[in-house]
Amino acid sequence: SVGEVYLVGAGPGDPELLTFKALRLMQQADVVIYDRLVSPQVLDLCRRDADLIYVGKERDNHSVPQQGINELLVQHARQGRRVVRLKGGDPFIFGRGGEEIEELQAAGIPFQVVPGITAASACSTYAGIPLTHREYAQSVRFVTGQLKNRTSDLNFDELVHPNQTIVFYMGLHTLERLCAGLIEHGKPVATPVAIVSQGTSAHQRVLTGTLESIVELQREAQLPAPAIVIVGEVVKLRSRLAWFGESERGQANA
Amino acid sequence: SVGEVYLVGAGPGDPELLTFKALRLMQQADVVIYDRLVSPQVLDLCRRDADLIYVGKERDNHSVPQQGINELLVQHARQGRRVVRLKGGDPFIFGRGGEEIEELQAAGIPFQVVPGITAASACSTYAGIPLTHREYAQSVRFVTGQLKNRTSDLNFDELVHPNQTIVFYMGLHTLERLCAGLIEHGKPVATPVAIVSQGTSAHQRVLTGTLESIVELQREAQLPAPAIVIVGEVVKLRSRLAWFGESERGQANA
Repeated sequence: SVGEVYLVGAGPGDPELLTFKALRLMQQADVVIYDRLVSPQVLDLCRRDADLIYVGKERDNHSVPQQGINELLVQHARQGRRVVRLKGGDPFIFGRGGEEIEELQAAGIPFQVVPGITAASACSTYAGIPLTHREYAQSVRFVTGQLKNRTSDLNFDELVHPNQTIVFYMGLHTLERLCAGLIEHGKPVATPVAIVSQGTSAHQRVLTGTLESIVELQREAQLPAPAIVIVGEVVKLRSRLAWFGESERGQANA
Repeated sequence: SVGEVYLVGAGPGDPELLTFKALRLMQQADVVIYDRLVSPQVLDLCRRDADLIYVGKERDNHSVPQQGINELLVQHARQGRRVVRLKGGDPFIFGRGGEEIEELQAAGIPFQVVPGITAASACSTYAGIPLTHREYAQSVRFVTGQLKNRTSDLNFDELVHPNQTIVFYMGLHTLERLCAGLIEHGKPVATPVAIVSQGTSAHQRVLTGTLESIVELQREAQLPAPAIVIVGEVVKLRSRLAWFGESERGQANA
């Protein structure tokens, strides 16, 4: 008989931010197929005798291409196994979860999806930066900083309006172009920016500056990926609201 | 000695979507101050002998006004108690968590913030609607549908661009004006829309239609709050990707 696939969001890294549902399914799984953004501490919570299969997902260099991952899921489920597809953050927010379950649906394999705390939410919280705030931001937007074909294909006109918070996922390696694009399209150069690197982990570091200064600050600080980039007035609140201990190298204009 | 305040996101309703950190703090709390959006199943998981204080938050009719909530937190912590401030969803996404901890910070009271799975993420997942998708949406935006002074003060120009998903929180009672505003500003009338009511609970119901049809469909279906409204091409995927059982009354053009 056919197995089942659970597409599970592992959250941002801190294993205490896993949900009960995620852990329950991880402990029932015969096979766990996971990628680079799942923390080792989370992986340790899988069933002891489950097969763990790493499918990578380096930027621009997927260890297993997406189509291969889709096929792995189908193949293991067809062998009657309970498969957990474990993804960093949330499967439906830049997680390509939709593509994976489209394949399962087409193959007639039952599936469930478990939301996880997405990086934008967890990392901003652990950095003391509310994504919305009555006075500063009435909306928040999640955008991928990973630009197709290495050319800027973001619609910057949409991103320069005031009173919104923008969170770029995977924006570290395109930081310079993102800041330049926002400035060119009219976003004030003094707009506060934060980089949250390895958010929620013991290695979390936060760098704050402005659209004008952050590129140079990051050049000096060299915070590592994974990281999110937060743009908006709410970043200012961090100076008062930070609560999670970390070593911080730069703090400019914030 | 002074106590501590934990601002905890309770997630969307399904108690299995609580995080381990949320539960741990809920079980340590001397006092739990909670509002309307926290589900009874989640509340049941608080420490048996904790004092539970309800502070409401009906729309336009807060049982305890925000300033009163802020003061309650300070007052209990000053008595040396461990206080959990339990909020539906996530404290930093339309949760006014920033305002509450600004008050704590000003009063010198230690605090921590625990992110929760926000309604947009959980409800879209349980409705089979990925918020981002390679082909349909490269960004997602969370907007409050609660309009100040009952007049439309949304910048609709920002919301009509293609290739984005928009999720309106608390948009049910302003649905007609939201749809009219989007259409007037150029969003195609055939744009798919979903309402997810009481998402992730056993009472979850989903209504799908278009910007043109959803108001009439909801007039007939009368789905109750709390609900989110999802606007964008990704809503189409639901017809293939829905996995969570529910009674559904309307399914139009999707």
